[in-house]
Amino acid sequence: MTPPRLDFWFDFASTYSYPAALRIGPLADEAGVAINFRPFLLGPIFKAQGWTSSPFNLYPAKGGYMWRDLERICADLALPFRRPDPFPQNSLIAARVALVGLQESWGEEFCLEIFRAQFGDGERIDDADAIGRILARLGIAAEPVLKVAQSDDNKRRLRDQTQEAERRGIFGAPTFITADDEMFWGNDRLERALRWAQRSI
Amino acid sequence: MTPPRLDFWFDFASTYSYPAALRIGPLADEAGVAINFRPFLLGPIFKAQGWTSSPFNLYPAKGGYMWRDLERICADLALPFRRPDPFPQNSLIAARVALVGLQESWGEEFCLEIFRAQFGDGERIDDADAIGRILARLGIAAEPVLKVAQSDDNKRRLRDQTQEAERRGIFGAPTFITADDEMFWGNDRLERALRWAQRSI
Repeated sequence: MTPPRLDFWFDFASTYSYPAALRIGPLADEAGVAINFRPFLLGPIFKAQGWTSSPFNLYPAKGGYMWRDLERICADLALPFRRPDPFPQNSLIAARVALVGLQESWGEEFCLEIFRAQFGDGERIDDADAIGRILARLGIAAEPVLKVAQSDDNKRRLRDQTQEAERRGIFGAPTFITADDEMFWGNDRLERALRWAQRSI
Repeated sequence: MTPPRLDFWFDFASTYSYPAALRIGPLADEAGVAINFRPFLLGPIFKAQGWTSSPFNLYPAKGGYMWRDLERICADLALPFRRPDPFPQNSLIAARVALVGLQESWGEEFCLEIFRAQFGDGERIDDADAIGRILARLGIAAEPVLKVAQSDDNKRRLRDQTQEAERRGIFGAPTFITADDEMFWGNDRLERALRWAQRSI
């Protein structure tokens, strides 16, 4: 019997995607749900809403609250937390590399490492050098991976993935979508999304 | 010993304030926390951010998700749910009357009844007649209450309350603030807010 599955849509620059990414593996194992990592870019979706930066920058009261809330959430989970500088980090190259890795064996570990480096250690993730260092830590030769990641084919795959996110009505991250198209938005909806996935096979 | 207290800031038109209002009493009793009902108006705060309506109307993808999410949440709580028409309801008179009731003995029951009528039964709550009918159901003579509610003094109290909300950094509803000024936003943060309140005496 194939396990129920849940699509995990995220942008590497998304703050609440950090605790979601670090929580989803063990919770999904426990629930018997298979997770499909779907990195995409929020930027084009925000732009279509008229936003030229993260809403957390555009609306300072909401942004200030988010940082404090995220700090509390990470403390509860015993996850290290540092605020990225600048915020948001440009997540384009990380997302392209993740798409390559997710077709091979190291994609999920790469995604977790990007989140840990950025939000746990305060490292930049916004250029090829930074991504190369993170790949090296995982024992992966950076140069050939970056070359495939920056190929026209792979660039198109990320554009397609982002367009699919928009078509599905995704407006933020993390977003979880079950096999029967039920959408759950936010780290705080992860448990609920897993329960729905369990019921929907 | 006085119990720890938690301020519960809400706008009657706010969708997620409905499950929060109906959940907060029993949960607070269990936690030994005293709740202070603080109705205010989100409209002026939204306007200051450049929004002329609810963000759920301005951003249709987010709005569509919210209605589905709220429906699921109410189903889990066995709370009846109907989408108000029009949305958002003008909550000005309801908030003014609530301020009167909260100085007397019937304020909290009135608040719950407004939420139930609007989101459970699909009643309008946006004019004096509608509020009068709801007061009558609670056995309260509407005319004298509405007169006090619409007095200059009481109008000023609601403006002051809304300005205090803005000054405290409130940008949405429901929002919970502990005695040591820790802020929690959203129905899904209610349990966390109560736990913080317990620790902060």
